[in-house]
Amino acid sequence: MIKGNGASPGIGIGKVLLIEHTQINVEKNIVQDTAHEETKFLAAVEKAKEQLTEIKEKALRELGEDKAEIFNAHIMVLEDPEFIDSTINKIKDEKVNSEYAFKQIADMFISMFESMDNEYMKERAADIKDVSDRVLRNLLGIDIVDLSNLKEEVILVTQDLTPSDTATMDKNKVLGFLTNIGGKTSHTAIMARTLEIPAVVGLKDITDKVKTGDFIVFNGETGDVVLNPDENTINEYKKLKEEFDKTRKELESYKGKESKTIDGRQVELAGNIGTPNDIEGLIKNDAEGVGLYRTEFLYMDRDDFPSEDEQFEAYKAVLEAMNPKPIVIRTLDIGGDKELSYMKMDKEMNPFLGYRAIRLCLDRKDIFKTQLRALLRASVYGNLKIMFPMISCLEELLEAKSVLEEVKKDLDKENISYSKDVQVGMMIEVPSAAIISDILAKHVDFFSIGTNDLIQYTCAVDRMNEKIHNLYNPFNPAVLRLIKLVIDNGHKEGIWVGMCGEVAGDKRLIPILIGMGLDEFSMSPISILPARKLINSLSYEEMKKISDEVLKLTTADEIQEYIQKVFA
Amino acid sequence: MIKGNGASPGIGIGKVLLIEHTQINVEKNIVQDTAHEETKFLAAVEKAKEQLTEIKEKALRELGEDKAEIFNAHIMVLEDPEFIDSTINKIKDEKVNSEYAFKQIADMFISMFESMDNEYMKERAADIKDVSDRVLRNLLGIDIVDLSNLKEEVILVTQDLTPSDTATMDKNKVLGFLTNIGGKTSHTAIMARTLEIPAVVGLKDITDKVKTGDFIVFNGETGDVVLNPDENTINEYKKLKEEFDKTRKELESYKGKESKTIDGRQVELAGNIGTPNDIEGLIKNDAEGVGLYRTEFLYMDRDDFPSEDEQFEAYKAVLEAMNPKPIVIRTLDIGGDKELSYMKMDKEMNPFLGYRAIRLCLDRKDIFKTQLRALLRASVYGNLKIMFPMISCLEELLEAKSVLEEVKKDLDKENISYSKDVQVGMMIEVPSAAIISDILAKHVDFFSIGTNDLIQYTCAVDRMNEKIHNLYNPFNPAVLRLIKLVIDNGHKEGIWVGMCGEVAGDKRLIPILIGMGLDEFSMSPISILPARKLINSLSYEEMKKISDEVLKLTTADEIQEYIQKVFA
Repeated sequence: MIKGNGASPGIGIGKVLLIEHTQINVEKNIVQDTAHEETKFLAAVEKAKEQLTEIKEKALRELGEDKAEIFNAHIMVLEDPEFIDSTINKIKDEKVNSEYAFKQIADMFISMFESMDNEYMKERAADIKDVSDRVLRNLLGIDIVDLSNLKEEVILVTQDLTPSDTATMDKNKVLGFLTNIGGKTSHTAIMARTLEIPAVVGLKDITDKVKTGDFIVFNGETGDVVLNPDENTINEYKKLKEEFDKTRKELESYKGKESKTIDGRQVELAGNIGTPNDIEGLIKNDAEGVGLYRTEFLYMDRDDFPSEDEQFEAYKAVLEAMNPKPIVIRTLDIGGDKELSYMKMDKEMNPFLGYRAIRLCLDRKDIFKTQLRALLRASVYGNLKIMFPMISCLEELLEAKSVLEEVKKDLDKENISYSKDVQVGMMIEVPSAAIISDILAKHVDFFSIGTNDLIQYTCAVDRMNEKIHNLYNPFNPAVLRLIKLVIDNGHKEGIWVGMCGEVAGDKRLIPILIGMGLDEFSMSPISILPARKLINSLSYEEMKKISDEVLKLTTADEIQEYIQKVFA
Repeated sequence: MIKGNGASPGIGIGKVLLIEHTQINVEKNIVQDTAHEETKFLAAVEKAKEQLTEIKEKALRELGEDKAEIFNAHIMVLEDPEFIDSTINKIKDEKVNSEYAFKQIADMFISMFESMDNEYMKERAADIKDVSDRVLRNLLGIDIVDLSNLKEEVILVTQDLTPSDTATMDKNKVLGFLTNIGGKTSHTAIMARTLEIPAVVGLKDITDKVKTGDFIVFNGETGDVVLNPDENTINEYKKLKEEFDKTRKELESYKGKESKTIDGRQVELAGNIGTPNDIEGLIKNDAEGVGLYRTEFLYMDRDDFPSEDEQFEAYKAVLEAMNPKPIVIRTLDIGGDKELSYMKMDKEMNPFLGYRAIRLCLDRKDIFKTQLRALLRASVYGNLKIMFPMISCLEELLEAKSVLEEVKKDLDKENISYSKDVQVGMMIEVPSAAIISDILAKHVDFFSIGTNDLIQYTCAVDRMNEKIHNLYNPFNPAVLRLIKLVIDNGHKEGIWVGMCGEVAGDKRLIPILIGMGLDEFSMSPISILPARKLINSLSYEEMKKISDEVLKLTTADEIQEYIQKVFA
């Protein structure tokens, strides 16, 4: 048995299909006719662009707009002069063959991105590798592995699935993914969860341990993988699979039910989404609203800022589809690890502690106002709530609110209608905001606690940094105290308090949050039905007592053990 | 009148000496005899090293060890193969003259460092520029400006003072510094404060506005500079200078006095230091102890970790010199923006939220134990208190304490004596630690609040990042609430609570901190006597009321205005 990172829940039982993305060997040759090499190279790039456009269109049909976006990014790599011109210059200057020149340039970029100790940049390295392998294969006339035509059901085993693998593959024949590299937030992991295909990633050298046709079983939740299992193990996994399938089916019965404890405390279970394409997932999982609509995806993988009309359409689509359910749309949270190619930003030493989100919007009111106009215009199509991210002090909140008032006045002047009932809220993700939440609560209609950043700042730990990952812990007593403080302060002022970080969907913490009095839980849509099932089984009064006990404990370990014991 | 950043208090009145670090023009020539260029280049580097060694020795005599260290760093630049070999390769490969090759390489490094939006890296760029200009001047036979032989008293005006300028200059003839660039933490600013020479930095283009011989007056506290002042202005500045000199003299009378409020509450006024060389400043300013001995300077600008014996000597020097005054020595706080050339660390996306300080020490117990051994061995020579930095949860504190116990056991076995009364404390600089300070207080003898990092993490703002500098505000109500919480929690457990961030020496906040009950204030030694004077004038009972009022206010501006009004 080997162990990796459980990346997408479910049980996989079946035969291996090993996809070897073999190293492409390229020789250096001195050439005289560099013009020919240049033409050959540009043709290979052009062919790659055509292939990618085709894949993009398939992805758009089968996976939705946001998943297809990545291929736009890939096409953009092939239009980047840094990449193309450098290769041509190398061909000319050094009189070398195009494969060699291109591989040298591509490898330089890849190792540059890989050397950065940061998930996002590593993903960019993987993108460039995917694209440049495609160009090299075209140059060398090597066939590209075709996953669109699988003859039997298989478990794919590979170094890492490339975005083009996932886009082209025949999903009905794929029982699972197992990869050498990747964490829970890697491309493969995200795709697996979207497709509801079980997956384990980060298995290090599984590609060396199995061959095509080997029988294998694995658990996408725990990360356990058993190669060539004996009959007992196979039966065990078959049972697990039955249970998993049963649970998934049972969860279906929670659709349409209220999210209420046995003693009648009702909360809202909402979904976190990134684009209008995610509406399907919301409806499928019976979300009671949207607790976090991350608008930055609208701004990414493009050449320029989205226009007011484009934004209006995107907001309207979700508001209308979900009406009258509440839709919390967060204003632009760009900066930090999220950059826009068309907006030059200074390199920052600590981007998570830098110029981002509301800080950027208050500095660039042109961008902010365009978004607020689009939001207000869309507000008549549903139940909109506007939320400001990264507020760290009262001054910022008041300034953001006054910009919103200005925009309303502009719309009044132009006789453009908007809903007068739009609630205005803020995220609590900076410790200072949590600490003065009594002050801030007087000026908003709701709070939504963003636990990912709140943990990060409260414990001074970058959640992407693997060396100190153990310190990023939602059970940290300081974090739980802040959450309780924010809920209490919100309730004292009569406003509702939600949560849209990962903790909101964590079944170990949902009972505690119920006990603390949280009003709204916003999570990955796939977690909504399990959360409802759980909440339906809890007593609010009992959870209050348990959460009070939890708040007396002194370490994350103690808290985790206590919770495990109570709910064992 | 023009305005810059007040960098070192005092009034400057006098004539300008404009130092133009003129752009050195270098032409590109194709050479045949590259071996000759190489020899010429290496000779110029060798000469620069000799000059720097001489300057270093002068600095060592006149400025102390830590200030001289920078020239070791400069010499190391000249020994860096990235720098030297790249130049030689360029000479050979491109058959160019050595000045051109070297300048190309140096400029590449300089612009690389300058492009990083971060004070520390910009300082490194300035270092490389200083060194490479020296080499270029040697290569081209241009004289290096000599500040060691000034004929009359002058105010130096320049783009930026280089470390070699400050080391070689005749301090008795320099009435002040005015520079185009730099902030309060730039090299020039730090040197000016050390030398007690008034200075204004960041004046942008003052070198274009004045010429040698111009008369000028300025205020090193407010940053005001008046070019060619009229008689009234001159008289006004003369009066200011008299007052300043009088105050400085008056402060002398506070030496030997107790740091006590008028109603008898006594606190400790201690100094922050980096090396044993700072003892002089402690004694000159009548420090009652050391509240923060930053041991990382011992580890910097070297080729390898300092040995146990070296560390022992450094700790002993301070303990012995100050005995029986309390000396709080902080264990290694490396990482973040402080790197060691000889210890490879992964590049981190957010180093302030990364692998640093106690996190590194608990991971690298070999380094940690060596330091703890040296500390314990030195403890018999004075009143040592050991302090752990960056503690974010109880687990870390307990683990650090257990390593200390292990080291004690080792010493017992080896029959090496150490003091049994060494207090063990921790910094409160991570918000989570402040929030659970009630829990942590049960396990330490003292807290010391590190406001620089505490503000940074609480408000999620990198204090080095100029774009969001306005959010780094010690008057932020969340920060003040945390400080009060920590003091109260410490006192409930009967331990003393100090502060060693910049806030501890801020005369606007000292009264509030007195009111909150802070027991120890550790600051730049130069701030101690003014702080004592201020505290001697305050009533503790009244400050308690004022600090309670302050804690009711809702924004940093309100708080600042209230304090200004109360103490007007």
